[in-house]
Amino acid sequence: RYPGFWRMLIVAMCTALLSCLQAQELQGHVSIILLGATGDLARKYLWQGLFQLYLDEAGKGHSFSFHGAALTAPTEGQQLMDKALETLSCHQDMALDHCTELKDQFLQLSHYRQLKTAEDYQALSRDIEAQVQQEGLREAGRIFYFSVPPFAYADIARNINSSCRPGPGTWLRVVLEKPFGHDHDSAQQLATELGSFFREEEMYRVDHYLGKQAVAQILPFRDQNRKAFDHLWSRHHVERVEIILKETVDAEGRTSFYEEYGVIRDVLQNHLTEILTLVAMELPYNVSDTGAVLRHKLQAFQALRGLRKGSAVVGQYQAYGEQVRRELQKPDSFQSLTPTFAGVLVHIDNVRWEGVPFVLMSGKALDERVGYVRVLFRNQAYCAQSERHWAAGQSQCLPRQVVFYIGHGDLGSPAVLVSRNLPRPTLPSDSWKEVEGRPGLRLFGCPLSDFYAYSPVRERDAYSILISHIFHGRKDSFITTENLLASWHFWTPLLDSLAREAPRHYPGGAKNEHLLDFEFSGSQLSFSQQQLEQLVPGPGAAPMPRDFRVLKATYRESPLILAWAEELIAKLANDIEATAMRAVQRFGEFHLALSGGSSPVALFQQLALRHFGFPWAHTHLWLVDERCVPPTDPESNFRGLQAHLLQHIRVPYFNIHPMPVRLHQGLCAEEDQGSQLYAREIAAQVTNSSFDLVLLGMGDDGHTASLFPQSSTGLDGKQLVVLTTSPVQPHQRMSISLALINRAKKVAVLVIGRMKHEITMLVSRVGQEPKKWPISGVLPTSGQLVWYMDYEAFLG
Amino acid sequence: RYPGFWRMLIVAMCTALLSCLQAQELQGHVSIILLGATGDLARKYLWQGLFQLYLDEAGKGHSFSFHGAALTAPTEGQQLMDKALETLSCHQDMALDHCTELKDQFLQLSHYRQLKTAEDYQALSRDIEAQVQQEGLREAGRIFYFSVPPFAYADIARNINSSCRPGPGTWLRVVLEKPFGHDHDSAQQLATELGSFFREEEMYRVDHYLGKQAVAQILPFRDQNRKAFDHLWSRHHVERVEIILKETVDAEGRTSFYEEYGVIRDVLQNHLTEILTLVAMELPYNVSDTGAVLRHKLQAFQALRGLRKGSAVVGQYQAYGEQVRRELQKPDSFQSLTPTFAGVLVHIDNVRWEGVPFVLMSGKALDERVGYVRVLFRNQAYCAQSERHWAAGQSQCLPRQVVFYIGHGDLGSPAVLVSRNLPRPTLPSDSWKEVEGRPGLRLFGCPLSDFYAYSPVRERDAYSILISHIFHGRKDSFITTENLLASWHFWTPLLDSLAREAPRHYPGGAKNEHLLDFEFSGSQLSFSQQQLEQLVPGPGAAPMPRDFRVLKATYRESPLILAWAEELIAKLANDIEATAMRAVQRFGEFHLALSGGSSPVALFQQLALRHFGFPWAHTHLWLVDERCVPPTDPESNFRGLQAHLLQHIRVPYFNIHPMPVRLHQGLCAEEDQGSQLYAREIAAQVTNSSFDLVLLGMGDDGHTASLFPQSSTGLDGKQLVVLTTSPVQPHQRMSISLALINRAKKVAVLVIGRMKHEITMLVSRVGQEPKKWPISGVLPTSGQLVWYMDYEAFLG
Repeated sequence: RYPGFWRMLIVAMCTALLSCLQAQELQGHVSIILLGATGDLARKYLWQGLFQLYLDEAGKGHSFSFHGAALTAPTEGQQLMDKALETLSCHQDMALDHCTELKDQFLQLSHYRQLKTAEDYQALSRDIEAQVQQEGLREAGRIFYFSVPPFAYADIARNINSSCRPGPGTWLRVVLEKPFGHDHDSAQQLATELGSFFREEEMYRVDHYLGKQAVAQILPFRDQNRKAFDHLWSRHHVERVEIILKETVDAEGRTSFYEEYGVIRDVLQNHLTEILTLVAMELPYNVSDTGAVLRHKLQAFQALRGLRKGSAVVGQYQAYGEQVRRELQKPDSFQSLTPTFAGVLVHIDNVRWEGVPFVLMSGKALDERVGYVRVLFRNQAYCAQSERHWAAGQSQCLPRQVVFYIGHGDLGSPAVLVSRNLPRPTLPSDSWKEVEGRPGLRLFGCPLSDFYAYSPVRERDAYSILISHIFHGRKDSFITTENLLASWHFWTPLLDSLAREAPRHYPGGAKNEHLLDFEFSGSQLSFSQQQLEQLVPGPGAAPMPRDFRVLKATYRESPLILAWAEELIAKLANDIEATAMRAVQRFGEFHLALSGGSSPVALFQQLALRHFGFPWAHTHLWLVDERCVPPTDPESNFRGLQAHLLQHIRVPYFNIHPMPVRLHQGLCAEEDQGSQLYAREIAAQVTNSSFDLVLLGMGDDGHTASLFPQSSTGLDGKQLVVLTTSPVQPHQRMSISLALINRAKKVAVLVIGRMKHEITMLVSRVGQEPKKWPISGVLPTSGQLVWYMDYEAFLG
Repeated sequence: RYPGFWRMLIVAMCTALLSCLQAQELQGHVSIILLGATGDLARKYLWQGLFQLYLDEAGKGHSFSFHGAALTAPTEGQQLMDKALETLSCHQDMALDHCTELKDQFLQLSHYRQLKTAEDYQALSRDIEAQVQQEGLREAGRIFYFSVPPFAYADIARNINSSCRPGPGTWLRVVLEKPFGHDHDSAQQLATELGSFFREEEMYRVDHYLGKQAVAQILPFRDQNRKAFDHLWSRHHVERVEIILKETVDAEGRTSFYEEYGVIRDVLQNHLTEILTLVAMELPYNVSDTGAVLRHKLQAFQALRGLRKGSAVVGQYQAYGEQVRRELQKPDSFQSLTPTFAGVLVHIDNVRWEGVPFVLMSGKALDERVGYVRVLFRNQAYCAQSERHWAAGQSQCLPRQVVFYIGHGDLGSPAVLVSRNLPRPTLPSDSWKEVEGRPGLRLFGCPLSDFYAYSPVRERDAYSILISHIFHGRKDSFITTENLLASWHFWTPLLDSLAREAPRHYPGGAKNEHLLDFEFSGSQLSFSQQQLEQLVPGPGAAPMPRDFRVLKATYRESPLILAWAEELIAKLANDIEATAMRAVQRFGEFHLALSGGSSPVALFQQLALRHFGFPWAHTHLWLVDERCVPPTDPESNFRGLQAHLLQHIRVPYFNIHPMPVRLHQGLCAEEDQGSQLYAREIAAQVTNSSFDLVLLGMGDDGHTASLFPQSSTGLDGKQLVVLTTSPVQPHQRMSISLALINRAKKVAVLVIGRMKHEITMLVSRVGQEPKKWPISGVLPTSGQLVWYMDYEAFLG
């Protein structure tokens, strides 16, 4: 029986060996070239990540070679690299001798190369091909990991593209590290440059937060708990989302980098924004469909409401200025405006998230080091018992939250926390385990025991995870060009508007007290505490805003209301409401004709957010003028009215009267008789075609409504609605005429801003010459005219 | 000099005496007749209130007489009354002998009268007149206080009206105590009856909660802190409002009353609703304008969203049933359905409050006795420091609330509480003082020290305050007929729908645990805990809802989706979204034609509240049919669409296509050619006039859209939109035709409810006979037809 046994053994062994060889042949050989192999990032994370890849993948069918590359000469480079490789470690569960064996194998596969000239790259490619051929392997692909400063990208990329592309049927992956530009334009430029060397699917832009275990769990969590959580994941249930990264360290020693970037570029534009999209995006039906994930992410970007200066608060720790002056050898007079702290309020204008505040915050020199995403649900319960009797897992009145805890903080490790009064979540039990009790530990206002709390079975470094994803081609953990540009498109306007803004100084650490707390109202963010330092009063008696209040005077023999812009708008809104109330009381309805453009936007906001008693249900809204563009065009006055007023109030559909600028024959076609149609609609619904209130503006050429100087229509004659031509684009307009304006019961002209000072002075002196200054023709026959001007327009 | 001095003194004294007499003559004499003078309420509160009135007003120019009246014979009545008057007390600040003196005066002015017959009332009136004449006084007015059961009202009122009205130039005030009816009809009847005897301004309906100091302070607080609080007092800042009255006592000994009323009639319809209107109403410019206050209150009622069964949860303490059976001598089998606990969710559909939950709750046998209104503001801040460092007065992240604390509870007295991170409020310092510190006392999740806390300088009983208001004619502290009926109008539908609902039993006191906690989603309220007792499973194997899931079959040779209604709606909504996504992906837009009526309402809600990814911005909405009524008519299909769908989603204005049922000549006038106009609009915007999806219903006569059997239009021919006639009102309709329906790419017919079973069976057997059964003519030429039916329609 022995020979038989041996034969069987040999057959079995050979079968195993052959299948192993076949697998290797099937899967092929992968070469990984780490550029910047002796740098900081490589030493700290990347070599360990590559070793981990080897540990995970060796024996699964691929063969590997690892090429550490840098500009350093071969011998010295090899020494530096050897040193970096000394610290490689296995997971603590692995037996020491097995680890040593695997490490030896890895070192045998790893070689240093100097990559400097085009020839070096050609040689590398040749060597890889030779090795593959020699060992009878098939090449699967090559990974080039750029751990080098951005200025080196172009050269390297060119060399790889021209000399190091593997042959047909194999793949090339290049891995890029941030920064990916400084704003939208520079990011676009860099992307275009890289795009001339690599195809989109070849590029893997790393945001290492996407490799952090808690962050990487967001989408799987949402997917696996879809049934219990997806409908809660919306404006109907979520009170707010906080995306927070607090650091205790400051920028000392790194100011040369930091001074150019600041906290928004360093943390918010990338890490926090990526997290935001993971939380906010619509879940694709299949979350392993990479293309769908990336598409949905992009859609989330597209739904973000644009940021303005008022969307953010910024701070700078007090010592920063001195650190910059010292490290960058700046003169004593140098003042840095770089923010080291930022709080930003993001709104997402889609049906799921409309109105839910997403708070993004990051800063240096704060009181604790912690990172998390916290989804806080609205309390939609009333608990009949006194608070004393509330029990955590049962009371719906205690806070309900889902937290992806990135790390550090009081908990000290990554975690997923779900309040026990929410459904018990499902997490993959092979990689997440329940956290053990920690009596006394409170997180987010609750004891740890109030949460279902899970932490990773095995904590893994973000880079290990991302390197594995690169190897497996999982592009959804990386930043596509489209998403990168979408993010810069979102952040650049805010960065531009903050560029000359002085950040609030803060002492750092716990001493910050409430100095950095901020609050929001609508889209507007502000620090909760008034700035402590006062403006130094200047010499002389220059008038200060508080010295003026609402003044009453006359202008062109009609009443003039004068105030600072904000008060003026408040006064006008009050007056409109009072007029509306009177009209509704007397006639049951109020006909209001509104101008487009930017001046009334603040008025619309005031009306929408402060005037709750406004009789909108009985108000008819008419347009003073309209541009001859499709209703979806950003230039459309009606579109502005929709965005800034209509969507916040409830006016019955049939009380809204857009101008019919698009009919059968196109935009403002004469033969469509749109202006006659509008005039008929007015005549049919407004007694005597006499609006209760017409709100006008005044252009710096003296135009009003869309009645421009020398217009052949609308300035005289009896036609009520006319087509006109504007000197600026879009040229074609529809407008109500002076004849119709002057039939109104009340006309208010709103003039705001220093830009209007000159025309304001001019018009104050001219007679009634509508052909030259159309505004001078506004003189209601039996109604009232009131001018609303701010001090800047009036005083210059 | 002495004679001079005496002369001066005499002159001075006489002047004083004369002016006093003149004042009395000027102000006149007031007679107060307390009907039911020896009853419970009179003994406990009313006599003391009258004495207080005397203390406050005597010497200010009026003279008084007080007539205690009842059915009891004079001697016995006087004895009972004397006993009631023994306990009268002055405020503790008053010197004892001064108090005794005033009390003696009051007793001298107070007399018992038997008021039983018409002659008694005539005698009373004669006596008052004689007294006034005898003492040389002028009569100012008479107050009749009805402290008697409602069944006695009519007789008394008739007698007062016919025999006791004071002469011309004087006033009559009658004071009425609840209950003011049992529902809208009975309240209306009672009001009509009283209205035949008294003018509206003569009636003072008491809700004694309006006299409670904290409640009476709501409007003055809002008025005096208008600048700091009015803009916070809105949906933009308020998270919720809680109006709570918890009792520890139960109904034992009072079940004969309670069994007829229950907690909603006893507490919510009156006290809590009055408080609700005080919190929610628009502030009039001048809060001392009684008329304006009452008008605004009525407007608040009109903005209340109607209650349905789902708006409330009800409970009954376990011992109640036994108490009722014992006290009312009911058989052991008797089960009371009277609620002793109710939680109700109220929404106010106006611009100020839209979406803010108002939680009303009251119950007996709860864990504590307390009453309050709590306005909880949304947290709109992010605090950059860890929670450890939050300071109460400064941190905007701690709760922000305004509480009108009616009394009892842990605080033990009325109070106004305002969180210290809100603006410091102004309260009248003569009547409200700051509460002293009470270390360890926590209220509403915060230590007392977190609040600006005020309590009355002098606690006053509600009846004293109201009696004073009656005397001063301050009608705004009382319930007008209009407001009373508005309140019943609001509550009656809920009471009707709950009449046969079994309340949840609760053990009482702290043992209730979380049994009575409730939560809301949209307008829907439910207990947080599932009911513990299970339904007893019946004999046999009757199919249960869970035994059926979504089934696929065919009906009239087209696909049929069968499910229980809720799942069916969910499935249909999913299918519509999927169709929409495909259409938008392929063509950039989705044209959806919707039916009116009640069946699709649940579908609209499903789409609005669960389908956040729906491509509304690219969806065009068309109507399948419309009733020829003005767009504001409740019968208007478009109005229903606005209320249930449009106001929750964001469809661009120009994508909404109501049917033009009202044009120049009126409603559906042939000469206006509205149907041709709609057909042209469809042709212009929908490729090939082929809708992506048409949603239809089926009437129990086999009609669909507004195409009725035997209709001369729409069932054949090529016209796309037609005018039709319905057998039920409103008769005139506009409808899309079978020709247009059958052009669609997809047609879904939704059939729900047992009522549809018969027609469903019939139509399953007939051929294509649209003249008899219009629905049988639905057969898309090249599109797909799908039937969505629930089991009730299908199985009966």
